Amino acid sequence: MDFLPSALETLVEHFARLPGVGKKSAQRLAFYVLSLTDEEADSFADAIRTAKRNVRRCPICQNLTQGNDPCSICSSTKRKKDIICVVADPKDVIAIERAHEYEGTYHVLHGVLSPINHVGPDDLQIRSLVDRVSTGSISEVIMATNPDTEGETTARYISRLLKPFGVKVTRLAYGIPMGSQLEYADQATLAQALEGRCEF
Amino acid sequence: MDFLPSALETLVEHFARLPGVGKKSAQRLAFYVLSLTDEEADSFADAIRTAKRNVRRCPICQNLTQGNDPCSICSSTKRKKDIICVVADPKDVIAIERAHEYEGTYHVLHGVLSPINHVGPDDLQIRSLVDRVSTGSISEVIMATNPDTEGETTARYISRLLKPFGVKVTRLAYGIPMGSQLEYADQATLAQALEGRCEF
Repeated sequence: MDFLPSALETLVEHFARLPGVGKKSAQRLAFYVLSLTDEEADSFADAIRTAKRNVRRCPICQNLTQGNDPCSICSSTKRKKDIICVVADPKDVIAIERAHEYEGTYHVLHGVLSPINHVGPDDLQIRSLVDRVSTGSISEVIMATNPDTEGETTARYISRLLKPFGVKVTRLAYGIPMGSQLEYADQATLAQALEGRCEF
Repeated sequence: MDFLPSALETLVEHFARLPGVGKKSAQRLAFYVLSLTDEEADSFADAIRTAKRNVRRCPICQNLTQGNDPCSICSSTKRKKDIICVVADPKDVIAIERAHEYEGTYHVLHGVLSPINHVGPDDLQIRSLVDRVSTGSISEVIMATNPDTEGETTARYISRLLKPFGVKVTRLAYGIPMGSQLEYADQATLAQALEGRCEF
């Protein structure tokens, strides 16, 4: 496509590299950038640079944070520091925080064990989790990986690693989602819901 | 969502402003930027800045080009300068060029007449088209706006404006798309195909 100015072509290529963005969408996004004011385009460009430069991992929970200090959750005095919720991804922290129910801290693994994708224990933040637990100040570790094969495997692997420290290891309840309808629940979910039934 | 670092939050907001990108996708795109190297992120940011700064409209055909000189099509010696194909959008130029059939020049209107969106003749590159035709060096103007109400209206409006100059004004043929099947063609297309039938 040499009928596009090369600067625009370059921008299209950058957008096309984004996950889930095809050539056509990339073109539309690039044309959108042309419709911005110079200031808006500059602030977009700065946002990319700044996010990349300033966002780091929290030295305690490995969640994303700005600067070198512990993240807002790890440094908050209101959170229970003896409970750790283990998640695969920073997005999962956002999801759990949105429920306004959890008051402990997190540990972000940044992935799950996946032999097929060559992801082993050393590629995840498992060592740093074990280090936190080994201090003896942790009373409970809640495994909150996704309820799929890789998530389950990762959770089991970690719970076995943590056993020697005598810490209580739990996992999120599986079952029928709130507000859903029984008739549309899949077999696996129903089976889990029956198995995990509790008294009224 | 104050559990996202503010630099990341800012980037999410910028992505969310892109057309067709929702909050969730914006988050995914922002996380992708974090996974880039510093150099890749910088070159992405530069691409935005550069495209916005350097892409201009060709002084002749109004298509997008780089710098202040006429675009590669207008300055090519191989193109027939007496034929103008009028399109609504730079993307339409790309589409037509892809067919490798057209050898004339273009004129990009940058929109279509649309009273409902408050787009009148003065908001489009119609004056500059009339100026080109008024020089007397143009033998044919091909209207290639989209075959919808607004595109048709715009084409009719322009063809009426150009009539006094005695220039030949044509439009693209409407009919059954190549490689398609008659049984799936819609009524309007079939009607057009019948009306525009030609001898073998």
